[in-house]
Amino acid sequence: MSARVAGVRLAATAAGICYQGRDDLVLIDCGGRASVAAVFTRNAFCAAPVRVAREHLAAGAPRYLLVNAGNANAGTGEPGLRAARRCCAIAARALGVEAGAMLPFSTGVIGEPLPLEPFEQALPVLAEALDEDAWDAAARAIMTTDTVPKRVTRTATIDGHAVTVTGIAKGAGMIRPDMATMLAYVATDAAVPRALLQTMLERAVAPSFNSITVDGDTSTNDACVLIASGAGGLRIEAADSEAARALQALVDRVCLALAADLVRDAEGATKLVAIRVEQAANEAEARRVAYTVAHSPLVKTALFASDPNWGRILAAVGRAGIEGLVIERVAIWIGQLRIVSRGGRDPGYTEEAGQAAMAPRELEIRIALGRGDAEARVLTCDLSYDYVRINAEYRT
Amino acid sequence: MSARVAGVRLAATAAGICYQGRDDLVLIDCGGRASVAAVFTRNAFCAAPVRVAREHLAAGAPRYLLVNAGNANAGTGEPGLRAARRCCAIAARALGVEAGAMLPFSTGVIGEPLPLEPFEQALPVLAEALDEDAWDAAARAIMTTDTVPKRVTRTATIDGHAVTVTGIAKGAGMIRPDMATMLAYVATDAAVPRALLQTMLERAVAPSFNSITVDGDTSTNDACVLIASGAGGLRIEAADSEAARALQALVDRVCLALAADLVRDAEGATKLVAIRVEQAANEAEARRVAYTVAHSPLVKTALFASDPNWGRILAAVGRAGIEGLVIERVAIWIGQLRIVSRGGRDPGYTEEAGQAAMAPRELEIRIALGRGDAEARVLTCDLSYDYVRINAEYRT
Repeated sequence: MSARVAGVRLAATAAGICYQGRDDLVLIDCGGRASVAAVFTRNAFCAAPVRVAREHLAAGAPRYLLVNAGNANAGTGEPGLRAARRCCAIAARALGVEAGAMLPFSTGVIGEPLPLEPFEQALPVLAEALDEDAWDAAARAIMTTDTVPKRVTRTATIDGHAVTVTGIAKGAGMIRPDMATMLAYVATDAAVPRALLQTMLERAVAPSFNSITVDGDTSTNDACVLIASGAGGLRIEAADSEAARALQALVDRVCLALAADLVRDAEGATKLVAIRVEQAANEAEARRVAYTVAHSPLVKTALFASDPNWGRILAAVGRAGIEGLVIERVAIWIGQLRIVSRGGRDPGYTEEAGQAAMAPRELEIRIALGRGDAEARVLTCDLSYDYVRINAEYRT
Repeated sequence: MSARVAGVRLAATAAGICYQGRDDLVLIDCGGRASVAAVFTRNAFCAAPVRVAREHLAAGAPRYLLVNAGNANAGTGEPGLRAARRCCAIAARALGVEAGAMLPFSTGVIGEPLPLEPFEQALPVLAEALDEDAWDAAARAIMTTDTVPKRVTRTATIDGHAVTVTGIAKGAGMIRPDMATMLAYVATDAAVPRALLQTMLERAVAPSFNSITVDGDTSTNDACVLIASGAGGLRIEAADSEAARALQALVDRVCLALAADLVRDAEGATKLVAIRVEQAANEAEARRVAYTVAHSPLVKTALFASDPNWGRILAAVGRAGIEGLVIERVAIWIGQLRIVSRGGRDPGYTEEAGQAAMAPRELEIRIALGRGDAEARVLTCDLSYDYVRINAEYRT
């Protein structure tokens, strides 16, 4: 299936920002009729490019995205902010637009000055090379310690129009020393008004990119962008239309698939694990329990060992701080196997069955709290020797 | 310095509850005039002995503590509760007291039935063996995966009386597969009314046992007991007396020293690290920031690597969820070295100095938020290969 999204062109090049012998700079042209929506990291220490991108997004009509790997331009203070603005100016000059049309993004080492010379050299080349077929090249160029590029394309026919949604993403886990983390760019050829596009993005992000966790650390540079180029046939006007719901579903599928790909490729991960919490009093407590289990180093090391360690899961549920939790109503499943009922080991449980349930590379832990009908689902991975190795290697 | 606390006698024996060839059952006689105070795990899934100990403590005047290692009697449901009550009855019969005089404690494997035969065999022996000089034997007998026993004794002269405080403790980190965790017993020969003793214990525990974290997991069996035997010369009556403050200080010192010993001996730990957060708007936010840094796997792996990775510390501070945090006011030190000022790398920072500051086995990370004058301090350790190894080993 072609990744192409009518109206959206991309280019990647080896600018030499940090890496040698590989592409590390990407330019994306959203097209003259595009709406662009974005969400950013909630970390108070957001990086310089995040601040500039937020400003430009708020000010007007952004058209181009400029993404570099190898240097996060984070923790760089005022000089970093000036560098992010300067990158936009350099790109704007090469493209013949105002600097405000540029959204800058950076990922890589924290605390190093961002060199501007590579941008000066590369931008004229990138401006000439823009191409609708460069999605895979762009997915590779934004990688830092990712081991595989992530690109997902889904299509549907909505209101009689063929619609494409393509997304690329990099990095989950605050990755190798000082590499900062998740970037995702998703585009559709549908036309969507800006405000509706922002709503659509926030809806898609909540159960996908905002429901994955590798180590609980939030990067300073996280960003996710949704582009509606308007170059295809579908025009969405009303949020409550059948077509809007169909497009939302398509965007959701792309974001969910990319999010799962990020966790699969997380640092040292050997397992992709969905933590589903059901029968909660409300969604907030369901998420709280899911994240407590997903972040427990004891649960994560047990997952690495494929150890059906129900005691650790139970203990993590117990310390999630849920007021009035009744132990006797809690049940837990690994895949189809019930391992805990009435707050203790299920009577039918056997170690053999438990080990078989833990064996797959991708599995679900389901926790029923017996308090209501709210639920939440979080994707995570295990904690392995390689996580420690990757993150303990010195930043050289 | 003798560990002896007048009026308090102990005995340990190899009951064969789980371990072979080592002591695993301890009886402590607080003495006929003792006050006893205790605090327990906040985990909703508390173990059976914790429930029984709470009941007996609330009902009247507990005199004996019974502690077994090797089996946590947690996640064992109604049969577990019956087993915990039965242990108390067995011990009470051997000692010629009511079952309500016993406080039971268990640590070890979760989810296995607690065998009662070892208690039947051992209790008559233990009752005969009680001795004021058995603190070190007791410290060894309550160990699970601890590598060294922990016993601390401090003395002072208060109101002209020589006062001793001795404490023993085991386990930090929810330890090896299914071993559940912290137990501490602290005794003084002073006489202290029960209510005041409880206040004294809660004050001592807050900055010590409740301010340490290995992996953020809370055990189902945690308990800390403070015994005032009343067999020495000092009698405390009023909470606001000079003598009460002096005794509080002595108990604080013992609890702090034991807490640090627990973290030093945590699973796989190679470093003891104090996270001190200053200039916070209130203590709650200071603790929140300290715990976020202390639990960050990225900070912990950097500590393991002795990597002065200020970007990770900064990012953890940034994601602690402090409303209105102004980046430019944040400063961070490792030991005496300022690594972050005005929210970015300190201008005077060098990698050489950073590495030298990270080299010691015990160090302090100090974080100033520039928002007020509240502070908090948390003790933690690094995250090493051995943590993963210990916790990924299968429960056999």
